[in-house]
Amino acid sequence: MATSTEPDSYLTSTSIALDSGSIARFAAQFDPQPYHLDREAAANSIFGGLCASGWHIAALATRLTVETLLKHGIAYVTMTSVGELKWTRPSFVDEQIGVRLTLGERAGDSPIPDTDRLDLLVDVHNGEGDIVATMTASAAVTRDPTAEEVAP
Amino acid sequence: MATSTEPDSYLTSTSIALDSGSIARFAAQFDPQPYHLDREAAANSIFGGLCASGWHIAALATRLTVETLLKHGIAYVTMTSVGELKWTRPSFVDEQIGVRLTLGERAGDSPIPDTDRLDLLVDVHNGEGDIVATMTASAAVTRDPTAEEVAP
Repeated sequence: MATSTEPDSYLTSTSIALDSGSIARFAAQFDPQPYHLDREAAANSIFGGLCASGWHIAALATRLTVETLLKHGIAYVTMTSVGELKWTRPSFVDEQIGVRLTLGERAGDSPIPDTDRLDLLVDVHNGEGDIVATMTASAAVTRDPTAEEVAP
Repeated sequence: MATSTEPDSYLTSTSIALDSGSIARFAAQFDPQPYHLDREAAANSIFGGLCASGWHIAALATRLTVETLLKHGIAYVTMTSVGELKWTRPSFVDEQIGVRLTLGERAGDSPIPDTDRLDLLVDVHNGEGDIVATMTASAAVTRDPTAEEVAP
């Protein structure tokens, strides 16, 4: 049965541009490394240019993930866990960040009452299509009372 | 040999108070769920009160982790991956967030040049000592040229 939550179907998000102000504001609060705060210091750093905190990328990826799930009628409630989160290359200023979602298993063992667990593979990419991070996560989604019963 | 990076030693951080403004600002940008944005909506939500985005907690935990490593003379450069990140209970407004770090293996296979990989277990707790999240992560730390050679 082809539904929007069929395993191995893909959903793609819109994208968000990484501007230097948002990179520096996030970094000042949570990850005050020179290569996130200052263009000149960043140019002389191991990364060779101003780039976003990995946690900024993870947070943006989450926002894009949630927007994309909701847009496709999947009643996201909250993320409950991350299985693995890996940053594969720096995300530089002015890059366009987007996500591609692979929907995995949907099961009845969410820790949040009245929700199902939906497993997600989140590939985070820049505007060139380079993967900048990957994340596996479980989300709680509102249980659909009209859905077939799922295993407890 | 007892050094500050001996496996299974613990480091503890200072704490940061979760104020409603920072909870809402983070949520508005990255995780605009009603229970992160508005006290009244939050009171009527599944969590029963205003609580921080899990990504806000992860980012704060990272800041506390980095500060704690640097304070103990461990030359943190960047986080390179997260093995598992789990939120175990909501972090409510006015809670004090701190971390306890368990330092794990230090090895030569960091993806960042001239650094070692340092494995970390990060237990994130509130002021009551309740664990609110746990995270395993690998950080790149500057290779100590005076250290014994590590396996490549």
